[in-house]
Amino acid sequence: MFNIQKEVQTKLMKGLLDLIVLQFISDQPMHGYQVISKIRRSFGVYFGPSTIYPLLSNLEKEGYVSSEWNMNSERPRKVYNLTNQGQNRLNYTEDSLKIICKKLGTTKPTEISEKTGCQAFPTFVE
Amino acid sequence: MFNIQKEVQTKLMKGLLDLIVLQFISDQPMHGYQVISKIRRSFGVYFGPSTIYPLLSNLEKEGYVSSEWNMNSERPRKVYNLTNQGQNRLNYTEDSLKIICKKLGTTKPTEISEKTGCQAFPTFVE
Repeated sequence: MFNIQKEVQTKLMKGLLDLIVLQFISDQPMHGYQVISKIRRSFGVYFGPSTIYPLLSNLEKEGYVSSEWNMNSERPRKVYNLTNQGQNRLNYTEDSLKIICKKLGTTKPTEISEKTGCQAFPTFVE
Repeated sequence: MFNIQKEVQTKLMKGLLDLIVLQFISDQPMHGYQVISKIRRSFGVYFGPSTIYPLLSNLEKEGYVSSEWNMNSERPRKVYNLTNQGQNRLNYTEDSLKIICKKLGTTKPTEISEKTGCQAFPTFVE
């Protein structure tokens, strides 16, 4: 049973990874390793550099994030910021997900108007 | 702007397609074409036979749906039923999505306990 839960959760997360990463970066500029750590901490699921770095690179190519090198850390770190275009995409994606979740009955239709932000809830996979 | 919305919605839907199809089949046994039509009707997004038939076939291989031929229609139709294993997977997936949506702030944490079922809401892409 545990394996099904883990597999199901990882599959869902993969489909939502763009949204998750954009949302994290909209909260605060981050480098890749911070994104990886925050996903693990927030969702209990590990997506490694081979997933996250190309994803960030694609988001940058598409103009949704921009990057700059932070030379003040122990070693140079590429730090990603959300662009205006990225903020638009994030808004669209959040709205789309709300509507899809509503149709799938995972929320009550009258109760999806309020956004609580990406807060720390206890992880359910450990 | 319309293109971004459509692209975002299609990308999200792709990641949730297993869940959507299992949920439809749990409501009532369906053949592939019915699944395609219902997705289009419910979400305003078209996924064709080249997406849906292999998806159904994989779900059957994995034991989540079973099929039987309905010989009473105009031409023989392969009709899919949800198995017990499929119901378990559906439950896990719905629960996982609720938790992920909650963490992403697309619902208020106290308001995700009630399931409303897959009801018809106005489609937002047309």
